Amino acid sequence: MSRYRAWFAAQDDPDERYPLTDVVYYSRSGGLLEVQHDMAALGERSAEEWKQLFDSRWMRTTWPYGSGVWGKKEWVCPEVDDANVVSTFEGGSNLFWAERFGREIGVEDLWIKMCGNAHTGSFKDLGMTVLVSVVKQMISEGRPIRAIACASTGDTSAALAAYGALAGIPTIVFLPKGKVSLAQLVQPVAHGATVLALDGDFDACMRVVRAVTSNPDSGIYLANSLNSLRVEGQKTVGIEIVQQFDWAVPDWIVIPGGNLGNTFALGKGLLMMYDLGLISRLPRIVCAQAERANPLYRAFQNGWRYEPIKAETTAASAIQIGDPVSINRAISTLKRFDGIVEQASEQELADAAARADRTGAYACPHTGVALAATIKLVERGVIARGDRVVVISTAHGLKFSRFKVDYHENSLPGVTSRYANPPVELPADVDAVRRVLAQRMGE
Amino acid sequence: MSRYRAWFAAQDDPDERYPLTDVVYYSRSGGLLEVQHDMAALGERSAEEWKQLFDSRWMRTTWPYGSGVWGKKEWVCPEVDDANVVSTFEGGSNLFWAERFGREIGVEDLWIKMCGNAHTGSFKDLGMTVLVSVVKQMISEGRPIRAIACASTGDTSAALAAYGALAGIPTIVFLPKGKVSLAQLVQPVAHGATVLALDGDFDACMRVVRAVTSNPDSGIYLANSLNSLRVEGQKTVGIEIVQQFDWAVPDWIVIPGGNLGNTFALGKGLLMMYDLGLISRLPRIVCAQAERANPLYRAFQNGWRYEPIKAETTAASAIQIGDPVSINRAISTLKRFDGIVEQASEQELADAAARADRTGAYACPHTGVALAATIKLVERGVIARGDRVVVISTAHGLKFSRFKVDYHENSLPGVTSRYANPPVELPADVDAVRRVLAQRMGE
Repeated sequence: MSRYRAWFAAQDDPDERYPLTDVVYYSRSGGLLEVQHDMAALGERSAEEWKQLFDSRWMRTTWPYGSGVWGKKEWVCPEVDDANVVSTFEGGSNLFWAERFGREIGVEDLWIKMCGNAHTGSFKDLGMTVLVSVVKQMISEGRPIRAIACASTGDTSAALAAYGALAGIPTIVFLPKGKVSLAQLVQPVAHGATVLALDGDFDACMRVVRAVTSNPDSGIYLANSLNSLRVEGQKTVGIEIVQQFDWAVPDWIVIPGGNLGNTFALGKGLLMMYDLGLISRLPRIVCAQAERANPLYRAFQNGWRYEPIKAETTAASAIQIGDPVSINRAISTLKRFDGIVEQASEQELADAAARADRTGAYACPHTGVALAATIKLVERGVIARGDRVVVISTAHGLKFSRFKVDYHENSLPGVTSRYANPPVELPADVDAVRRVLAQRMGE
Repeated sequence: MSRYRAWFAAQDDPDERYPLTDVVYYSRSGGLLEVQHDMAALGERSAEEWKQLFDSRWMRTTWPYGSGVWGKKEWVCPEVDDANVVSTFEGGSNLFWAERFGREIGVEDLWIKMCGNAHTGSFKDLGMTVLVSVVKQMISEGRPIRAIACASTGDTSAALAAYGALAGIPTIVFLPKGKVSLAQLVQPVAHGATVLALDGDFDACMRVVRAVTSNPDSGIYLANSLNSLRVEGQKTVGIEIVQQFDWAVPDWIVIPGGNLGNTFALGKGLLMMYDLGLISRLPRIVCAQAERANPLYRAFQNGWRYEPIKAETTAASAIQIGDPVSINRAISTLKRFDGIVEQASEQELADAAARADRTGAYACPHTGVALAATIKLVERGVIARGDRVVVISTAHGLKFSRFKVDYHENSLPGVTSRYANPPVELPADVDAVRRVLAQRMGE
């Protein structure tokens, strides 16, 4: 048994507590639940000892500690049996030095945390490994759970279906019909989930999944982002970034924001390091939103007064959300981290992604939003030339081939593709090829 | 300066040698060149010392040794300056325990090496980091190289374009027009390569790129798989697999085969470990081919008498090759490793990929070929129930969304989709959803 403990606590009443293996999503007052850790017990180990422990496990073979998430098990979910951990050794993604892109935009110490380089191609694996492991633990303890369900614009459903398939736990995925990319729809299908494509938007899917899971006796466990278990895994991204800099804290972390659970999670992991003495200062956090789905940006401009909006269609489909589940948690996080919210137009996000690709990255549209926000903050002098900046890339560009093809065919709605690089079609003739190359190399 | 040395040597005359930084592709007799290492120098370090060195670098932050490839730099390409290494920290991909799939097919110790979980989504990164780093070294030494070119059915061009973009070295990619998936074509385009789509098949592309690069004064360096530098990076996949089992050798390694450079590379890495005493036995190697592109399989059936064929269209597009560049090297490797060649029909490869997906993997068609071959060898009792088997997954399933969508829509040519799992379209209505779920859960 672990000497460490974690539990759900009501945001508005820390004394209202539940085991992490209870089927409970809301506090008595209807608020969200947070996972709290026994910080006193964690504090009995020194900061140096934690760093050494985490470094000794990093990407190694001892199950399950080689996972970037489970290598921090005591901080994440200490009471799950190792045998119930469902893991693809998530985390440990490359911290990519965007050397050429950084020089282009005027900040030389620029890095991209490639969270999309993952089993399901997005950062959602970090949280889903924790949630599905806890469900496996619940089942092993005899709870009558028959399936796990979520409503998702794509990446969450892909991760849930993959981890469910890995564990042999049935999954149910609610998708807004025709609103997600082929690559995103096919993952839960391929992973054997029951995929229900509903005539409606994401909010409609949320209503239905909540109704279906509201009764604990339904045997269907809810995996949406209001489920705080996923935050415990997602929060390791900030810890990993610092660890990958040999425990040095960057000046800025830029993260794309939709439902905003990831912004809150990023802050939570960093604050745990701060409270336990592993770091002595905090980075500033920039949350980047698409201009067409920018409720947090509007709140930031408006003295943090928040109002839900109706999100418009954006290429950054996974953050096309008008009323984020984690709005309040994200605002508190940004206040704590001297945070900024910046936005990017379709033109700005598409061009930023294209410029990153030309310098060796392979950016999804959401990463494009974060890169565009970074460019604007550098141009405005908010981010200084010498600052160390980390941009969190949330999904692999391979999930958005259509977006990239449309860009390079100059057919993205509302976008003029300044960096388009269409292929040249030629006969299989050496002289014809030599002529084209002479032109190109002459440029 | 490194105390270790490597050089090109002619296969037919080991005394015909060239520096790795020479622009040379063939021996005087027109044969392939091999990279040879100073094994005596490498042998001055004990096997235990090598294991400890490699483990101490594994996925850590010290440039460039955190890369799975460059963590073995002395064995790969010892004389490249660290400053000229072009790396995305490739390698270190998850060794995925296919627990449920293994139970289904009757071999419980089954693992999938997820090489597609990489910067460009395929195992080609392992080799390309070495080739582009050597070119950067050549340029830094004043050689007049203006660009790197390759002909490719997809993954190679994606990797070349990405590493070229990262290094700021122009790249030229020759693709057979309309023969590769959208996701594969768009990568070199996005990475800013000059993409020439030729009216012709892969062999036609090869002829053209060889003509264009034949003259060393062209300033265009050839990056095709006849270039043995890439083998040096690719060979680390076998070393990594053993390292990820804490230096225990599996009984079988199954790898899909097209141009067959990867089969040769797999063997080369394992033999280096064997010759330097890190392992005391060799695994058996299975090369898996698509039935519609099976020249090596035919040779195996025919007492290793090889004849080129005209490959037919297969969903496993990256191994749709009738006359493999590395045929002879691959045959020698298979002889040395008590090797087997097995083939898979379109039906077999598609079903195998679908079954793997339902159990948590996300298999590309080529991985489907390898999994189908594994199933057949288990059914025939060649692979025993208790054997430890590693299947090498060469690309991320995300690169083949169309293949998966077609499968689950039951529209793959010549395939009946036994494991199709189409989405269910419904109104956003709770009762309608409850009815469908009651059915499904009742099953």
